[in-house]
Amino acid sequence: MASPPPPDDALSDDGLERLFASLNQASAIVAAVSGGPDSTALMHLLARWTAAGARPPVHVATIDHGLRPEAAAEAASVGREAAALGLPHRILAWTGDKPRAGIQEAAREARYRLLVDHARQVGASHLVTAHTRDDQAETVLMRLARGSGLAGLAGMRRETDRPGIRHVRPLLDWPKTSLVDLCRAHGWRFVEDPSNADEIYARVRWRRLMPRLAAEGLDAERLARFAGRAAQAEEALGLKAREALDRAGPVLEDGSLSFEAGILAREPFAIAVRVLEQALVGAGLESSRLDRLEACTERLRDAVRAGESLSLTIAGALVRLDRTGRASIGPEPPRRRGR
Amino acid sequence: MASPPPPDDALSDDGLERLFASLNQASAIVAAVSGGPDSTALMHLLARWTAAGARPPVHVATIDHGLRPEAAAEAASVGREAAALGLPHRILAWTGDKPRAGIQEAAREARYRLLVDHARQVGASHLVTAHTRDDQAETVLMRLARGSGLAGLAGMRRETDRPGIRHVRPLLDWPKTSLVDLCRAHGWRFVEDPSNADEIYARVRWRRLMPRLAAEGLDAERLARFAGRAAQAEEALGLKAREALDRAGPVLEDGSLSFEAGILAREPFAIAVRVLEQALVGAGLESSRLDRLEACTERLRDAVRAGESLSLTIAGALVRLDRTGRASIGPEPPRRRGR
Repeated sequence: MASPPPPDDALSDDGLERLFASLNQASAIVAAVSGGPDSTALMHLLARWTAAGARPPVHVATIDHGLRPEAAAEAASVGREAAALGLPHRILAWTGDKPRAGIQEAAREARYRLLVDHARQVGASHLVTAHTRDDQAETVLMRLARGSGLAGLAGMRRETDRPGIRHVRPLLDWPKTSLVDLCRAHGWRFVEDPSNADEIYARVRWRRLMPRLAAEGLDAERLARFAGRAAQAEEALGLKAREALDRAGPVLEDGSLSFEAGILAREPFAIAVRVLEQALVGAGLESSRLDRLEACTERLRDAVRAGESLSLTIAGALVRLDRTGRASIGPEPPRRRGR
Repeated sequence: MASPPPPDDALSDDGLERLFASLNQASAIVAAVSGGPDSTALMHLLARWTAAGARPPVHVATIDHGLRPEAAAEAASVGREAAALGLPHRILAWTGDKPRAGIQEAAREARYRLLVDHARQVGASHLVTAHTRDDQAETVLMRLARGSGLAGLAGMRRETDRPGIRHVRPLLDWPKTSLVDLCRAHGWRFVEDPSNADEIYARVRWRRLMPRLAAEGLDAERLARFAGRAAQAEEALGLKAREALDRAGPVLEDGSLSFEAGILAREPFAIAVRVLEQALVGAGLESSRLDRLEACTERLRDAVRAGESLSLTIAGALVRLDRTGRASIGPEPPRRRGR
């Protein structure tokens, strides 16, 4: 597991080379910079990295969510800092309707839509955000509170694919304090996002709880380590589920995937659940909520063990178990939909 | 996954039969009863269960840790309640030295030693404790804070083996409030353990934090559900590791276990770590801390992939990787020990 790099050598040529290694292959890069300490540090680190060799062009983008009156001035201030560093800058405005409930989730979706669109416009293959280990810890706690399984508890990945764009989080192992320290040490100007003080946001409330949890040992490092282990466990279980399904003679026919149902009962439960999930996806259907997948897997295991046939629906899919010992998964017949 | 039984029917014959099903086969039962609401409810539920048919004899035991002056009076009070229910009662005193640091862990060890000894003396095959879903949630949080892996995060099991004794926790799905409600509804007298108010204990501090976490959705039910999933994941990964090791031609010779090392690199990391752990145990050695196992597994994978030989020690074991592609694990040679 990667340990956080010492911020001491973050500004050395070697440190920057390691930090941004996966960006060297980019056609161009969009860096999301709000003007807070994390993304301000990211912008300055990227500027130093580009200055140290032939690099892909870096475009700075700031989202104006249209939620706070000060946001426009803050975005303009990022623009001035970017200009001073010789980096092009754009303000991307979220102009759509703002829902009253779930505003953070809606803002997050809008943000990535705007950033990915902008990346396409400037011909960028990579998007870079300044998520830190502290953001990761909050994400893990929020997902734990939401009842996520291991896949969710794995937290944010260092690199993920968004449609046509590679999203990289180079600072994901870094404590936020090290970025604030960097900004202060170098006089890089940043703003404090006032939404940090707004307790209506779940993330902000978790952020407030973090010092209490850290005092008991549950600090960001522990949570990030846990997320890493959850990712490793999920990877292993997913792979073993795939191998089990491959051995179970899967046949895809007329939009329906069938396989030998015995594996659902023979494999340990954690793998059987993932076999069902992969069979749904393999049949071209959507997966389901974890608790529904688990309940469905339990019923299928019981039926297989009892030698019974069974027919149930999950997330728009019809799962059938026949007496020949095959399970088949396909779309629910139209007449049964929308009831 | 089992859902908590409705406390409404807990006192019906059927409810009690289900609750204590695994105790029917006991030669005799020791119930650990402190006099708090959870164990007071357990004692009364057991008394009703024994009254409803031919049951194994139930012996009530109260530990006096010798840490609080009121403890002796509380233990005597449990004795009176037990006598009124027709159940034999013993006070077990912790008379040994009390460490200043880690007193809760030492008290826990002493408690189980005394209870298991007492069970042997009265010919009991089963020990019953009143752990609730809330205790489970605290245990999971404490282990998360301590950096435990999935095996630890699985929390307490419903049934575990202590040397010669089966330890059963029938109330592990029950919220503590349902037990307090039961006591109040039936006028069962209980005491509040004053150590609940003592913030020097990590468990008590976590208990205090629980309402804050529950307000964000991370309540005892969520944590218990998470523990159940961790247990299922750990079971599956352990099984797959055993299968992988079995396929790798394991040979136990002269106290050393050897196997084809390629599996350490081919299997996903979460399984490779457990292969190493099982190989240590298979060689009759002790396992190690998870973070050391992980570091050791990483080095072995790198060496296997590079085709290099390697020799390293972990927890008193010598792990060797030779150029023929075999890994062997045995005790560290004496001359190298204790350096």
